[in-house]
Amino acid sequence: MSSYSPIGPVVGIVGAGQLARMSQPPAIALGVELRVLANAPDESAARVIVDTRLGDYRDLADLREFAQGCDVITFDHEHVPTEHIRALAAAGHVVRPGADALVHAQDKAAMRERLSGIGVPCPAWARVSSPADVERFAAEHGWPVVLKAVRGGYDGRGVWVCRSAEEAAQATAGPFAAGLEMLAEAFVPFERELAVLVARSPHGQGVSYPVVETVQQDGICVEVLAPAPRLDPEVAAQAQRIGLKIAEELGVTGLLAVELFETAGGLVVNELAMRPHNSGHWTIEGSTTSQFEQHLRAVLDLPLGTPKMTAQVVVMANLLGGDDPDLFKRYEHVLAHDPGIKLHFYGKQVRPGRKIGHVTALGSNLDEVRARARHAAVYLTTGEYT
Amino acid sequence: MSSYSPIGPVVGIVGAGQLARMSQPPAIALGVELRVLANAPDESAARVIVDTRLGDYRDLADLREFAQGCDVITFDHEHVPTEHIRALAAAGHVVRPGADALVHAQDKAAMRERLSGIGVPCPAWARVSSPADVERFAAEHGWPVVLKAVRGGYDGRGVWVCRSAEEAAQATAGPFAAGLEMLAEAFVPFERELAVLVARSPHGQGVSYPVVETVQQDGICVEVLAPAPRLDPEVAAQAQRIGLKIAEELGVTGLLAVELFETAGGLVVNELAMRPHNSGHWTIEGSTTSQFEQHLRAVLDLPLGTPKMTAQVVVMANLLGGDDPDLFKRYEHVLAHDPGIKLHFYGKQVRPGRKIGHVTALGSNLDEVRARARHAAVYLTTGEYT
Repeated sequence: MSSYSPIGPVVGIVGAGQLARMSQPPAIALGVELRVLANAPDESAARVIVDTRLGDYRDLADLREFAQGCDVITFDHEHVPTEHIRALAAAGHVVRPGADALVHAQDKAAMRERLSGIGVPCPAWARVSSPADVERFAAEHGWPVVLKAVRGGYDGRGVWVCRSAEEAAQATAGPFAAGLEMLAEAFVPFERELAVLVARSPHGQGVSYPVVETVQQDGICVEVLAPAPRLDPEVAAQAQRIGLKIAEELGVTGLLAVELFETAGGLVVNELAMRPHNSGHWTIEGSTTSQFEQHLRAVLDLPLGTPKMTAQVVVMANLLGGDDPDLFKRYEHVLAHDPGIKLHFYGKQVRPGRKIGHVTALGSNLDEVRARARHAAVYLTTGEYT
Repeated sequence: MSSYSPIGPVVGIVGAGQLARMSQPPAIALGVELRVLANAPDESAARVIVDTRLGDYRDLADLREFAQGCDVITFDHEHVPTEHIRALAAAGHVVRPGADALVHAQDKAAMRERLSGIGVPCPAWARVSSPADVERFAAEHGWPVVLKAVRGGYDGRGVWVCRSAEEAAQATAGPFAAGLEMLAEAFVPFERELAVLVARSPHGQGVSYPVVETVQQDGICVEVLAPAPRLDPEVAAQAQRIGLKIAEELGVTGLLAVELFETAGGLVVNELAMRPHNSGHWTIEGSTTSQFEQHLRAVLDLPLGTPKMTAQVVVMANLLGGDDPDLFKRYEHVLAHDPGIKLHFYGKQVRPGRKIGHVTALGSNLDEVRARARHAAVYLTTGEYT
């Protein structure tokens, strides 16, 4: 006799990183069954989700087997080949977001083409396939030129900011030799980076979270400030309109994160992601509906939850791996120092510079909340008392 | 090559009901590894915790095997035989709460004896082993008399409110024939039922959550109002002092829930539980530190989190199984009706009257918040629109 009545649907997540892991708490609450496709049984999400299947997300046969019995399939990352996603949909599986939307988070040239087409502000851009193409682009738009791999990256990198033809030639030598498609973009002299997270469900409901500021160091997001401090309400509303417009025009189902540059001339779109995003981790405690719950609701075509904040100010700080892998021994100090700090560990091997967790602080005074988040993040990763 | 570095300790939970299930979200966040001892692989917590071991909590050999490799052992329920808990501790396992504390949540006579001894207000009580004992007790304290099984229950019941010697004789016939120890308590003419939840860690730190009102129907908790409305602040402080005192005097490690009667003559203790408790489910969204996170922190001897509320008013309503097991089809209405309502399903087979989940609403106006929680609970379980 079974003590279980399967009241909830099965959501299959391709990939078993921290985004899938952090989807498990709202799935537990909603009674939704998660299944993940992992590379190894000790990956971040595989450690906390019972129905873990091992396989290769680049292998269509593995994907087909994984999809059997899932009510909907979604993603932890954007690296599943677009043609495989189309094949799953053709076989009758429900995949959200669908390939026609997701391709804009996989292919930066397709994204630029489409966003320019619907009037969303982008930097000047061009496909380039040789150093001569890059120099022609620079002649028109000036240096520095930002070079990007159209899909994925090369040797662990996907973006190069080049100040001269020499730098560009050096950066692109490997990628061009490997036959990679590249994109050139005009460097945007931005004041700061913002992000807006929206959700859209198949039946067309959309919601937008408050616009946040993302603070980067060496190209890695280290802090997210919610809401973005001192942001002109009109600019905030414009960012939200851009997010909702992109979601609608591209037919996104699930979450859409839009990374933006704030410039003297207005907002410019930098990147898109169609999944829970680092810039939305603050919503776990900082919003009535976390981004992880929202994504599940959206891909299941359930009504979306309110994105309302639970505090006036929320700061999320990433934990970047240091030299010492034993973070647990440092819990005691940070939890005693700040009884309101919220810790999130991803169960990943600690490697220098790797995102291994995050901390969140809530309150009403930005400087104070930011100092609390920083103190915890610095102490947990380095043992240094700031 | 493993991609995992085991930064967190292993917490073993004996029992795999909804309390263990709801412990998984904070364990995921803290990077704590949960292991559960389940009766069957499809129990509530077994469905969401990878390291599920099957076994019988009444069997010492099963408990010993389960305990191997756990850094600390704690409980989803109080039915593990006290002598088995002592045996585990004697074998060097860390068990929290320990047997000397937990026995007061297992044995109602031991609890009354101890609480009376430390001056905590209790109803008049006596051990009874025959109808004549009950009549003697009634002669002194009057009818009705509340009869309770000292440990566990009989035929699914553990409490009988008897208005006469005849009713008492009928209620106790089975238990006395089965040789069960029984307790007689004077009926307390209470105004309402309150509960206070406290946590205590092995190094002696204690915190108390705000006192709540628990609303019962037919002896089952249907609603929890946090904080207890219109409660005299002095009475609230007294309830918290009672909770902290019991935790300290009994050497509780982990959570302690104290159920109280509010009477014209003051507070009277009804029952104790030493684990997360139904009266504390509101803390998942309603407090900065949920009771489930707090219990993990306490049994791991980590500093406790703030019990501060995240809203002025929080109402939790239990979902009691109705005739229709398919609750999921009713999500759409409740989520669309109230974008701020929070749903919790336990993945348990739906049976009439069984607690299969709960809903939580947060806000600032009690009547409004209560109506929202009720609407969702009634609709989800019956399909009726209130």
